[in-house]
Amino acid sequence: MTEDHSSAGAAGPTLEGLRLRLGEFAAARNWQPFHTPKNLAAALSVEAGELLEIFQWLTPEQATAVMDDPDRAHRVRDEVADVLAYLLQFCSVLDVDPLAALAAKIERNEVRFPVE
Amino acid sequence: MTEDHSSAGAAGPTLEGLRLRLGEFAAARNWQPFHTPKNLAAALSVEAGELLEIFQWLTPEQATAVMDDPDRAHRVRDEVADVLAYLLQFCSVLDVDPLAALAAKIERNEVRFPVE
Amino acid sequence: MTEDHSSAGAAGPTLEGLRLRLGEFAAARNWQPFHTPKNLAAALSVEAGELLEIFQWLTPEQATAVMDDPDRAHRVRDEVADVLAYLLQFCSVLDVDPLAALAAKIERNEVRFPVE
Amino acid sequence: MTEDHSSAGAAGPTLEGLRLRLGEFAAARNWQPFHTPKNLAAALSVEAGELLEIFQWLTPEQATAVMDDPDRAHRVRDEVADVLAYLLQFCSVLDVDPLAALAAKIERNEVRFPVE
Repeated sequence: MTEDHSSAGAAGPTLEGLRLRLGEFAAARNWQPFHTPKNLAAALSVEAGELLEIFQWLTPEQATAVMDDPDRAHRVRDEVADVLAYLLQFCSVLDVDPLAALAAKIERNEVRFPVE
Repeated sequence: MTEDHSSAGAAGPTLEGLRLRLGEFAAARNWQPFHTPKNLAAALSVEAGELLEIFQWLTPEQATAVMDDPDRAHRVRDEVADVLAYLLQFCSVLDVDPLAALAAKIERNEVRFPVE
Repeated sequence: MTEDHSSAGAAGPTLEGLRLRLGEFAAARNWQPFHTPKNLAAALSVEAGELLEIFQWLTPEQATAVMDDPDRAHRVRDEVADVLAYLLQFCSVLDVDPLAALAAKIERNEVRFPVE
Repeated sequence: MTEDHSSAGAAGPTLEGLRLRLGEFAAARNWQPFHTPKNLAAALSVEAGELLEIFQWLTPEQATAVMDDPDRAHRVRDEVADVLAYLLQFCSVLDVDPLAALAAKIERNEVRFPVE
């Protein structure tokens, strides 16, 4: 039984499918020389800042209702996509498995922050 | 045919499994009141900065070899985990599907940046 | 002998003059309710990201020559201004003296990083 | 009539005095090769993130009272110092006058956001 890594199967795109598709996208445009670990870490930070920018002047109430405004909702999804795209490309160039990294971190945090 | 959303199946953790596990982790510690969209966007940006910090003074050559140093490699995986954790928790509280958002963005970028 | 805190004296604008002018600017537009310490810290971080964005794909050589390109030079000055503006406004709302804070930090760093 | 640029005169340190002192500090430790515009822009963004980190989980009320807690107050001053230090060093290597940049920006904003 094999996992389907295509990015748009019946069950929707997968993380691994999207990671591969981003690699092909960059390769087809000869962007790999720009995609150094340091540049991608910078780009990830820049995009995370753009996501935060949407919220910087909002009250907590406005922030919670941000997806009710179609323009803001589109911006949120767009910046989420950018953050995830640079995170996946960063992981690709350094051969880091983001899911394994997160699973390991959760296990460390379960020890660090025990439930009372 | 159902998808296995457990975070540590035979094929390794899945994004959806980790997202659910993060939600349970926060709920068990009563952290949800802190996990507003605005706070999570700020935390995501802070963690992306911590990932960039590892690289800020490195030469391109040092940055490319960052995973050869066990301490730096651990820090990289740790910060990747934190970025992904806050991205998933942000998406949870606003009901955003990060994979669908990225697939849609790649499609827009294929139109915006055609291959010559 | 008094110091001239006007922001555009013969010797050019002063930090204190600009800080006061930013306060008047915000007050005249009723922006103070938005200028909480947390919002201003977020805005500062967002603007620092926008400054970094100018450099994210540049080679070291291109980055060093960034002021030779009039458009990029304008963006650099514009983002420097935004970072300084939010830093000063942050300091105003929390009554922090940025010059005293930096002088104290340099003194600590002279102990922490002795010259060999 | 000359301006006193020493960083610790009777009237306290000046921005220009601190900028010069930071330059001497880096030169004495042979840090200039690391102080490229791109690295300094990254470091500035990282430090702005560390300032935001202090506030990320605080309520608006806790954020407003942040200077009442001596430990947090020290961290705030320390991160303000770091942000200002990297901003000044960035401006030094690119020969940008941050006060002139901010004065020009305020003038543009007075046109862009007229008082009603």
